[in-house]
Amino acid sequence: MIKNFKITIEYDGSGYHGWQRQKNDRTIQEEIEKAILTVAGQQVSLTGSGRTDAGVHAYAQVANFKCETHLDGQALSGGLNSLTADDIVITGCREIEESFHARYDVKSKTYVYKILNRPNPAAVGRQYAWHIRKELNRDTMRAASIHLIGSHDFKAFEGTGSPRSHTTRNVFKAGLMEEKNNCLAFEIKADGFLRFMVRNIVGTLVAVGLGKISPDEFKHIMESRDRALAGATAPAHGLFLKNVVY
Amino acid sequence: MIKNFKITIEYDGSGYHGWQRQKNDRTIQEEIEKAILTVAGQQVSLTGSGRTDAGVHAYAQVANFKCETHLDGQALSGGLNSLTADDIVITGCREIEESFHARYDVKSKTYVYKILNRPNPAAVGRQYAWHIRKELNRDTMRAASIHLIGSHDFKAFEGTGSPRSHTTRNVFKAGLMEEKNNCLAFEIKADGFLRFMVRNIVGTLVAVGLGKISPDEFKHIMESRDRALAGATAPAHGLFLKNVVY
Repeated sequence: MIKNFKITIEYDGSGYHGWQRQKNDRTIQEEIEKAILTVAGQQVSLTGSGRTDAGVHAYAQVANFKCETHLDGQALSGGLNSLTADDIVITGCREIEESFHARYDVKSKTYVYKILNRPNPAAVGRQYAWHIRKELNRDTMRAASIHLIGSHDFKAFEGTGSPRSHTTRNVFKAGLMEEKNNCLAFEIKADGFLRFMVRNIVGTLVAVGLGKISPDEFKHIMESRDRALAGATAPAHGLFLKNVVY
Repeated sequence: MIKNFKITIEYDGSGYHGWQRQKNDRTIQEEIEKAILTVAGQQVSLTGSGRTDAGVHAYAQVANFKCETHLDGQALSGGLNSLTADDIVITGCREIEESFHARYDVKSKTYVYKILNRPNPAAVGRQYAWHIRKELNRDTMRAASIHLIGSHDFKAFEGTGSPRSHTTRNVFKAGLMEEKNNCLAFEIKADGFLRFMVRNIVGTLVAVGLGKISPDEFKHIMESRDRALAGATAPAHGLFLKNVVY
């Protein structure tokens, strides 16, 4: 009997060329598909909720795959965790209705981007935050990020070379939290994201925090639909896919 | 003119065989001494506040070295940070009175030990916490750790093969904090520590949290001065030297 499994995966993206299977590079999808082949004896195709780029991390990426097996979710996840490297952890695995599709059925996703804002870089945890030396103005960054909330055309924050016909997304939440030890966490929840959208937003918000752009100018950039006006793309290693809602 | 410099160092110990210079292994002390040789042109001897073992991290290790140079602390730290790998960061460097000695002058040190207590191991941050799958009883662990406070003979928690004549230490603070995402942090401040003392205490506290030892038995183990009665040594990668007071 063919079963459909929904799995949840935490990963440290530092050592991978992103989620999606590629010819010559090590990816998360490929590592898990290889482990499934060993555990369940079948070459499956793993469908993720979406790609994450090279170096991006995930607390809870979601994927599904169909597989003819007598194993249940718990046995499968135990087997997979014993095979994958310790930078990939299957945190959940259960059988789900046949119609479930990890990409098409997404209702919302939340990303968090971490910034270490202090004069010295970090040694401990340097893999998990973008270091900004100069003090960022949290107030102007918060004022700017409020403009993100709602349904907007985010073409100005889309990575070049990845044009989509439809660039409007609905942002449910966007906010900047102060965490301990000079760490800032920018969290954004939306019904979908364009390629590089979070990293381009963060790069532009940091320009706001540094006083190079005002919150009003941030709004104008967003409305311009012009990628050339927005800030630089923030590095991958500060970005985490936090969760996916179906 | 010979100057005495006090430096503060954050490091991720994952890739090192501890603090202290060794013949064939990469150590923090050696990496910094090599960088000083390049920046100031002198082979110096770096005195740390104490050793940290292979794999142990530091938020703020302190060391001093004497050097004949026209450079000031800021120029030195800038130069050192440009030379060391990104898992070693000099967070402070300043000239200090000639008599200052980073080991002899220590008044107290604080260590923190991090435990991830949840069924699944972590992918993100797995380098920085000991994963304990079964739920730990925080109350019994707290009750046990109170017994550590005060002046006691900690011979039961000293690593074997490292006998010291004097095994009494004065513990000023010891407590277990609940952090977010199922992370526990055991923090201990004392006038000094025996070899493996924190890791042996944590290994024994975890035995308390798992219900194998009662808080009263923990006290008896401590008073017994018998290493054989205490728990296993907790792994190095959960331990952080948090700060050193002079």
